Amino acid sequence: MSNPGLPDSTGLPDLNELATQLSPNALVTDTDVIAAHSSDRALFSPVESALALVRATCVEDVQATVRFAAKHAIPIIPSGARTGLSGGINALDGCILLNVAKMNRILEVNTLDGTVTVEPGVINLDLKNHLADFNLSYPPDPGSVAISTIGGNAATNAGGMCCVKYGVTRDFVRSLKVVTADGEVTTVGRNTAKGVAGFDLAQLFIGSEGTLGVIVEVTLRTVPKLADPLTSVALFSDPVHAARTVTDYLGKGATPSLLEYMDGGTIEAVNAYQNFGLPSGAGAMLIVQSDGSGSMTRAQEDLELFQQVAQDNGATDVMYSDDPRDSESLVAARRAVAPANEKLAHSRGGGELVDDVCVPRGRLAEFFERQAQIAQKFPDILVIACGHAGDGNMHPNVIFDAGDPVSIQHAKEAFGMIMQAGLDLGGTITGEHGVGVLKAEWLARELSPSAQKMHVAIKQALDPQGIFSPGKMLSHLK
Amino acid sequence: MSNPGLPDSTGLPDLNELATQLSPNALVTDTDVIAAHSSDRALFSPVESALALVRATCVEDVQATVRFAAKHAIPIIPSGARTGLSGGINALDGCILLNVAKMNRILEVNTLDGTVTVEPGVINLDLKNHLADFNLSYPPDPGSVAISTIGGNAATNAGGMCCVKYGVTRDFVRSLKVVTADGEVTTVGRNTAKGVAGFDLAQLFIGSEGTLGVIVEVTLRTVPKLADPLTSVALFSDPVHAARTVTDYLGKGATPSLLEYMDGGTIEAVNAYQNFGLPSGAGAMLIVQSDGSGSMTRAQEDLELFQQVAQDNGATDVMYSDDPRDSESLVAARRAVAPANEKLAHSRGGGELVDDVCVPRGRLAEFFERQAQIAQKFPDILVIACGHAGDGNMHPNVIFDAGDPVSIQHAKEAFGMIMQAGLDLGGTITGEHGVGVLKAEWLARELSPSAQKMHVAIKQALDPQGIFSPGKMLSHLK
Repeated sequence: MSNPGLPDSTGLPDLNELATQLSPNALVTDTDVIAAHSSDRALFSPVESALALVRATCVEDVQATVRFAAKHAIPIIPSGARTGLSGGINALDGCILLNVAKMNRILEVNTLDGTVTVEPGVINLDLKNHLADFNLSYPPDPGSVAISTIGGNAATNAGGMCCVKYGVTRDFVRSLKVVTADGEVTTVGRNTAKGVAGFDLAQLFIGSEGTLGVIVEVTLRTVPKLADPLTSVALFSDPVHAARTVTDYLGKGATPSLLEYMDGGTIEAVNAYQNFGLPSGAGAMLIVQSDGSGSMTRAQEDLELFQQVAQDNGATDVMYSDDPRDSESLVAARRAVAPANEKLAHSRGGGELVDDVCVPRGRLAEFFERQAQIAQKFPDILVIACGHAGDGNMHPNVIFDAGDPVSIQHAKEAFGMIMQAGLDLGGTITGEHGVGVLKAEWLARELSPSAQKMHVAIKQALDPQGIFSPGKMLSHLK
Repeated sequence: MSNPGLPDSTGLPDLNELATQLSPNALVTDTDVIAAHSSDRALFSPVESALALVRATCVEDVQATVRFAAKHAIPIIPSGARTGLSGGINALDGCILLNVAKMNRILEVNTLDGTVTVEPGVINLDLKNHLADFNLSYPPDPGSVAISTIGGNAATNAGGMCCVKYGVTRDFVRSLKVVTADGEVTTVGRNTAKGVAGFDLAQLFIGSEGTLGVIVEVTLRTVPKLADPLTSVALFSDPVHAARTVTDYLGKGATPSLLEYMDGGTIEAVNAYQNFGLPSGAGAMLIVQSDGSGSMTRAQEDLELFQQVAQDNGATDVMYSDDPRDSESLVAARRAVAPANEKLAHSRGGGELVDDVCVPRGRLAEFFERQAQIAQKFPDILVIACGHAGDGNMHPNVIFDAGDPVSIQHAKEAFGMIMQAGLDLGGTITGEHGVGVLKAEWLARELSPSAQKMHVAIKQALDPQGIFSPGKMLSHLK
């Protein structure tokens, strides 16, 4: 999609004009600081040269920045903690980076309604810890839980390990305060448990990756404090048996609060990184937890069922623990996949691409077969996977030699073939990491021409100048 | 909002042209049949004279009708079982009524993924019954559960009694097949548990009340078959003590699967209608159920907590039953409020307006105080309420003499004052019944100018000719 409203810059706008409208020190023109704020954690996503960085400390800073950008037809890229994996907040030439990480106050915990209102820069884990004092939980737990912000989580509809039972960010947002393309601030969504007054614009903004406006406040519903879960682990000779276990188990009406997958290569990578007590030599592993919705009996039944189903599906070993330390260690092992793979990549030339496809859970076995074929086709690179098995959401990691053009080429091909496998199996190119720059071309393959047209029309309707995050998620849609 | 694309009809379009493109007998021009399809169940909502009725039996019928309407700039009003309460599907002069109630096949139950795909005309209760054979449940249960369609439920984001634990229709829709304003058919949403590829257009269509397109297929997620609940009832001398019980109970981390409210006047109306064993003379009643997420122990704990909290809040009587027949009878009593109020209205001049505001649950007590003030202001009419207390979603019924202009005027005033109370308390004018014609003017009061602008822009973007349901939900937005 083109940005018809953005003329070529023929002269630089006067940043002093902007500075006078902002909080002291909010405007940053130091090129080193700008560079440090110019990218997220994605590979193969271009980083260009921003005109300026605004570190907003209040809604008025955001409004002033948007109005300035609109007046001068300058692209504006909202960002938070920059922990994304798709290049969605990477700088464009001449853009303003609008960072809201400093807007990080928890504004209100409403215990009567079980809601919490925060500024966008609040770190997810900080919110969780804060809510614990009120006996409340906010379930969404992306891998970046300790470092990513609630605003970023909402802008990308972040997921995590809890989703198999509790859902994603979208399921917890009651309302958003947003700054729109004309610099107005408005509330979308509602502060009640139910409501059908008009379009659900909050749902439209969630997952829109900064292309429709800037999120400056989020009201979330919470749930009563989650009970400590019980944990079980099953090992398999190969991924397909693990996949069948997932389908059978959930098909029997189980409601696990976590159902994670690691393949043999991932287990090896984690073992090489740190000793979490994981066995070696398995072809695949499932970690399951149940909190029994507060009933320990129900949690035990959930895990007994899991063990039975895993054994019926040829599990080579099934372990069970009601020691919370063991549970924590197993989940820590799953969370360690990211640094473990980084270390592995480092030893093999430094290249790593993290994919994120989601297929209907009934087609996981086929997906694993496709993954094996892709790995076989490129023996010079590694394709290993972990993921949120209960949701069919897989993260194949492509590990390659970043110094070898052939290896890079193979990695890119494998990355694409993984997404194609996802689409072929009725799934999506991204379950939770988002589109950004990395998958913008692929979004155009996933969406029908008619759905693309709707995206373009809505973008044009809400941001006619095209100032918000051009060249990103929507850039290949027609 | 005006409909710039719709010129005044200077001549009638040739319906034969449309007939040749439709399934046999799909086009209906018989004025009696058209009249029978021209309205839902709302009062005070104008019903005009439709040009024709199309009873679609397939997606192609819908596409042909939309294309014909677009070509001739004729308004088109999609409908299902016409059980709405806001006039959203009432005929406009010269419109085509596009009814999809005959598209009522259950297309696929996918037990591997726990999803079900249906045509829009499938009745909610029929779907529930069908899923029971697969040990699956589809929770949303609007009052119209036995007569309303899944397509209509999606178009209006229907709620019900389950929502306090399980959420509304929106929370169960994976994807929709829709026919857009250009007659194209496309899928919005996704068939996976998670997905973030682009805007969530399915969420935009849900609750859009036929203003953006026609829903021709719905894929829903299901949950494992819900366990039979236990039931408890508490009586109070007045509504405010009931409200405090709701807030305290939920604040203690309870997760009831139903938490319903009836005030004294409503209990009397139900008792006059049929004997469900409800006591008389109470000022307010709460019915609570817990399914314990499958754990009977947990369900019992939930209800014991309820009884304790109710007593602490001055309940005059608390009853408990683990006999499923008692539970069914109590819920049947709650479901009988609609016909009971109809009967009551009949005895008082026939007028009845059902309101549907939702406030933050922490403000229910204040809402009841406002309701009492409104009732006091108009002693010639009745204002009695029931509702989904756990969600703060109240249905005050205004009962009046439809033959007395003063009574009608008072009823309308009271109806508006109830909505104003909802807005004043941080709530919404409609929790689940929708906007339609009845509350279109009020939608403009609820939404900020900026949010209105977004609605108008999106409508214009997706339906530039304004053919879908003009004069309804969006008609007062600027």
